[in-house]
Amino acid sequence: MYNTTSPEGGGNVMGLKIVAALGGNALGNTPKEQIKKIKSAACHIADMISSGYEVVLTHGNGPQVGMINLAFSESTKINEKLPLMNLPECTAMSQGYIGYHIQNGIQTELTKRGINKKAVTIITQVEVNKNDTAFLKPTKPIGGYYIEEQIKKIKENNPSFTYVEDSGRGYRKTVASPKPDFILEKDSILTLIGEGFVVIACGGGGIPVIKTDEGGYKGIDAVIDKDFASGVLADLIDADCLIMLTAIDGVYLNFNKENQMKIEKMSQQEAQNYCDEGHFAPGSMLPKVQAAIKFINKKKGRKALICSLGNADLAIKGKSGTVIE
Amino acid sequence: MYNTTSPEGGGNVMGLKIVAALGGNALGNTPKEQIKKIKSAACHIADMISSGYEVVLTHGNGPQVGMINLAFSESTKINEKLPLMNLPECTAMSQGYIGYHIQNGIQTELTKRGINKKAVTIITQVEVNKNDTAFLKPTKPIGGYYIEEQIKKIKENNPSFTYVEDSGRGYRKTVASPKPDFILEKDSILTLIGEGFVVIACGGGGIPVIKTDEGGYKGIDAVIDKDFASGVLADLIDADCLIMLTAIDGVYLNFNKENQMKIEKMSQQEAQNYCDEGHFAPGSMLPKVQAAIKFINKKKGRKALICSLGNADLAIKGKSGTVIE
Repeated sequence: MYNTTSPEGGGNVMGLKIVAALGGNALGNTPKEQIKKIKSAACHIADMISSGYEVVLTHGNGPQVGMINLAFSESTKINEKLPLMNLPECTAMSQGYIGYHIQNGIQTELTKRGINKKAVTIITQVEVNKNDTAFLKPTKPIGGYYIEEQIKKIKENNPSFTYVEDSGRGYRKTVASPKPDFILEKDSILTLIGEGFVVIACGGGGIPVIKTDEGGYKGIDAVIDKDFASGVLADLIDADCLIMLTAIDGVYLNFNKENQMKIEKMSQQEAQNYCDEGHFAPGSMLPKVQAAIKFINKKKGRKALICSLGNADLAIKGKSGTVIE
Repeated sequence: MYNTTSPEGGGNVMGLKIVAALGGNALGNTPKEQIKKIKSAACHIADMISSGYEVVLTHGNGPQVGMINLAFSESTKINEKLPLMNLPECTAMSQGYIGYHIQNGIQTELTKRGINKKAVTIITQVEVNKNDTAFLKPTKPIGGYYIEEQIKKIKENNPSFTYVEDSGRGYRKTVASPKPDFILEKDSILTLIGEGFVVIACGGGGIPVIKTDEGGYKGIDAVIDKDFASGVLADLIDADCLIMLTAIDGVYLNFNKENQMKIEKMSQQEAQNYCDEGHFAPGSMLPKVQAAIKFINKKKGRKALICSLGNADLAIKGKSGTVIE
């Protein structure tokens, strides 16, 4: 039933272990939009699986975790019974919300194609270091807008919260974006991959947790970049390839300028030089290239790809996107 | 490291496969409360694991899915950018929210005890029949209160929604509570159990889905009773024992009356007779006893327990709670 031959050749790609990171911006802003967009994405993911690759899927959650956080912060303004929801819990919710749609969409597509594989979502906690310098200056604005009086009230119970005036529309909460160190659910993810499941993990970069004195972990108000988390996951499960899926067809120098130029291939050193020269936008292409460098740096023979969702299968075969190796 | 001897004897209990269902009401109404309550529950779960049982955990989500649904419906009143969130998505969010805290709490407790096992949450879809008679008359009120004008507006986009006037405080949406037929993530749950993981699944009775014409599944606005879903899961994974954890220490006849009497043991037939005689409250003890009957009816040698969380370990050894066998 399950076609494991690579239909288009392209070298020895069979059985390659791939971590593919889907952007949260590609998932829409409502449940209806999300189901529709995932249906289309599922075709491209299924193409990769049909080609014989072992695919582990990660995804962003920027708009979704913002929506959940905002829904709770707005609703507490008119219903005091509802609690404020911090980011670890909002991210956990977004993993359920997005993971459900992705596993459902991929499963439907696999069933249609007669591929006997099951999709499964793992709620994923990602360890960050409480001494990460990102915590000294939370810079990422999230959720709704507040007036000063509302902030004073919130700060009574949450003195450590920080806010920033945003575009003249009021104050927004700012949070830190620390680097991911470790995936707590590594073992279950590896077990399921080993048994042939299509695993969805590290949603939204993972639920950020720090070590506690008693030997456990607790959530911390932060967001983790999903490309960095995907890189850590790809390293931990010893993936051959990390694919970061974007809206554009690869990495550009002088992007959006007259002299823009697409890069088809770059070495780790070239990629680092371009980063240092400021070619890539922070929060957009920069973390992707940085995650790529970090992943391939850890072991010989690895490669990282940055390409559009629709061309992922081609990019693996070297026919689209940008490869860093 | 891992103590697999049963410290208190009680017959051959080693390696028993157990599905333990935790009530959503036992989890509190805010993230802080939930973390605290799960910390205490995790000790009792870890006791069972220390005794050598293979534990699969399910949980309710009544207050939590209500909270999430309400947060979205309230917030749309003051922020039109936010979407309404239907029950499959709200349940998926609650699985992430509760599952994160449970897997974190259990993992911390296991680590403390030097037990080398990992906890993991699986986002779980549960198939229901679209012809279930429960859909003909949605009776379960959920979420916030509306005035007639608001309902008219919502119905423009969602003509099938039903509402009921509730306690003079306005109208609330009503949803169906169909019976669970099948757990879509059965294979991944079985794989993880087989490899020794402590699996958390079927949160809130599972995300309700129905078969589609194209061979996939889609969410349907409903809620599934977590005891019934736990029974289906226990049957599918061929558990030896289904434990339904409640606030009280077992099943009573004439509950809360002067002549109330605790049942220590009942046969399937006795349990059925008591149900028929109206001894058990719908939405409370009745579904537990019905789920127990259905589970033990499918295979010889199975037993079902209804007991308090604190006495679960004792109940398995026949020293607490009510056993149905």
